[in-house]
Amino acid sequence: MTGFTCPVPIAATDSVLLGHGSGGKLSAELLRDIFLPAFANPLLARLEDQAVLEFEGARLAFTTDSFVVKPLFFRGGDIGSLAVHGTVNDLAMGGARPLALSTAFILEEGFPIADLRRIADSMARAAARAGVSIVTGDTKVVERGCGDGVYINTTGIGVVAEGVNLSAAHARPGDAVILSGAIGDHGAAILTEREGLELEGAIQSDSAPLNGLVDAIFAVTREVRAMRDPTRGGLASTLNEIAAQSRVGITLTERAIPVHEGVRGACEVLGLDPLYVANEGKLVAIVPAEWAGGIVSAMRRHPLGAEAAVIGSVTGRDAGLVTMRSAFGTTRIVDMLAGDQLPRIC
Amino acid sequence: MTGFTCPVPIAATDSVLLGHGSGGKLSAELLRDIFLPAFANPLLARLEDQAVLEFEGARLAFTTDSFVVKPLFFRGGDIGSLAVHGTVNDLAMGGARPLALSTAFILEEGFPIADLRRIADSMARAAARAGVSIVTGDTKVVERGCGDGVYINTTGIGVVAEGVNLSAAHARPGDAVILSGAIGDHGAAILTEREGLELEGAIQSDSAPLNGLVDAIFAVTREVRAMRDPTRGGLASTLNEIAAQSRVGITLTERAIPVHEGVRGACEVLGLDPLYVANEGKLVAIVPAEWAGGIVSAMRRHPLGAEAAVIGSVTGRDAGLVTMRSAFGTTRIVDMLAGDQLPRIC
Repeated sequence: MTGFTCPVPIAATDSVLLGHGSGGKLSAELLRDIFLPAFANPLLARLEDQAVLEFEGARLAFTTDSFVVKPLFFRGGDIGSLAVHGTVNDLAMGGARPLALSTAFILEEGFPIADLRRIADSMARAAARAGVSIVTGDTKVVERGCGDGVYINTTGIGVVAEGVNLSAAHARPGDAVILSGAIGDHGAAILTEREGLELEGAIQSDSAPLNGLVDAIFAVTREVRAMRDPTRGGLASTLNEIAAQSRVGITLTERAIPVHEGVRGACEVLGLDPLYVANEGKLVAIVPAEWAGGIVSAMRRHPLGAEAAVIGSVTGRDAGLVTMRSAFGTTRIVDMLAGDQLPRIC
Repeated sequence: MTGFTCPVPIAATDSVLLGHGSGGKLSAELLRDIFLPAFANPLLARLEDQAVLEFEGARLAFTTDSFVVKPLFFRGGDIGSLAVHGTVNDLAMGGARPLALSTAFILEEGFPIADLRRIADSMARAAARAGVSIVTGDTKVVERGCGDGVYINTTGIGVVAEGVNLSAAHARPGDAVILSGAIGDHGAAILTEREGLELEGAIQSDSAPLNGLVDAIFAVTREVRAMRDPTRGGLASTLNEIAAQSRVGITLTERAIPVHEGVRGACEVLGLDPLYVANEGKLVAIVPAEWAGGIVSAMRRHPLGAEAAVIGSVTGRDAGLVTMRSAFGTTRIVDMLAGDQLPRIC
């Protein structure tokens, strides 16, 4: 549950829209108008992707996500591996080593057992790769027409590394903004698959567990301000959340942000901006400028960080605003995703 | 995820049936044939309603459930309170004090915002009553026709009380079987509501948080062998699981098992056996005989245990079998629920 800046009042609609699940402005409204007031507590109000509980002198991270991705199987992954990676990554973005995962399935009557087996096996492989066990679970079945094959919840607990104190509210003017690699792969893979587009150069989802890459960063320093994986709503929404919560400006350099050729092409065909397209194996780190070089070097030595780069910086001007300088020297505002660009992307 | 004895091979069907979500034999098959082999690990293989992790010298309980109950609102509760109670109770049945809950919503496009608010408020009240906070969450939206209003996952972490060592495998011959109150209220309430039955004496769900009742038991002794809340599959399935895992027999005295008049009537009309109907605010405890009297007295002083009674005993004969003696002195075998008696009861 993330997202904060949201000018449109929820009274604008009296029923749930697809956009309420997009990770953009409508999602933030639902959180602000319904869930935060009802469940009022300081942990939830922090609006991080994970809650952190003090326990026996340690810090436990706790995070949950349900996955409704469509199609269930796609280039580079499936709903099972995505569900494991998504929750491992929410823990990792809190600086937590994953301890254990739970999983809960909502199956639609008639779903092929062979597909369920394939998904369970994929989850098991993803968990093994991330070094975490799935230790408890649940299965429910709904009637034909009341679901869409399978929906999967994964919830994770992890232990926050000592000396780490990450928060989307911790960015400071002068910090560097690091991105671990090219954006838009996951969303573009899902959408081209869904639309049956045949494009040159197959696009693969980047779905991957980021905890190893985070370990590589922490081996350089634990003085990282904030980390986020730009999933629903894409890089633009993630950076807007950080800018809003830290009350800082963020300026990006367009040409520093890698976008794979195939993704660029798919986005052109589909009329999408890669900045708003979901990633499932990328991270953004806000770090003190003096550590930026060392962190980028360490990330580039990790297979999931080969294209890591400094893509911008944090400023004291224009609090809450993300701006981007193009190759031609023009500057534009990069707003938060409004409404629903891509439903059921995760 | 519970359930173990299951003679029918899963090859009998190649697609998901409603019965796979019933908590009976088909659910157990799915677990045995798909999830246990894929996620192979010792915690999951214990087949308890919660995993217990050793952490910093303490024991953390971890449990998950998705809720797909239909209708969403019913006498005595709604999907929101049910989701909180269900997970609090799975923790409590492991002897754990709830530390924190997560929640994840899968909303169907078009779901009324007012209903969502009502459900969130109900969850908040249920959490306050149980003394636990909802600290993190997630929302996804699926297209109209791909869901059924709202599905809710709750996942909980708790701390297992010191000196407690509960397991469905710990029942021993000579132990007493204690039931906290009348059976079948939840399932009968849901089903009469769903079928639009007008019966004399309105049936209310017994949905309630059991952690307070467990505290009352532990105030007498922590030498409890096993605790379970007989939800999907009812009392019969729960006792069959315990008999199978402990490799003991269980004999019940029919007249000792309370069933409310309205529930008895509804079950007659609907052709159901209350032993297989779900409860959401009852517990079964297997305790050494010498503690039974003291525990029942303590439970009766708690509002949720007013009808607590010893309903049977554990024997060394007929391992894995649950039998019941009727008022007429006849004895019958109480088998595990086969197939699907009541879909979408929780």
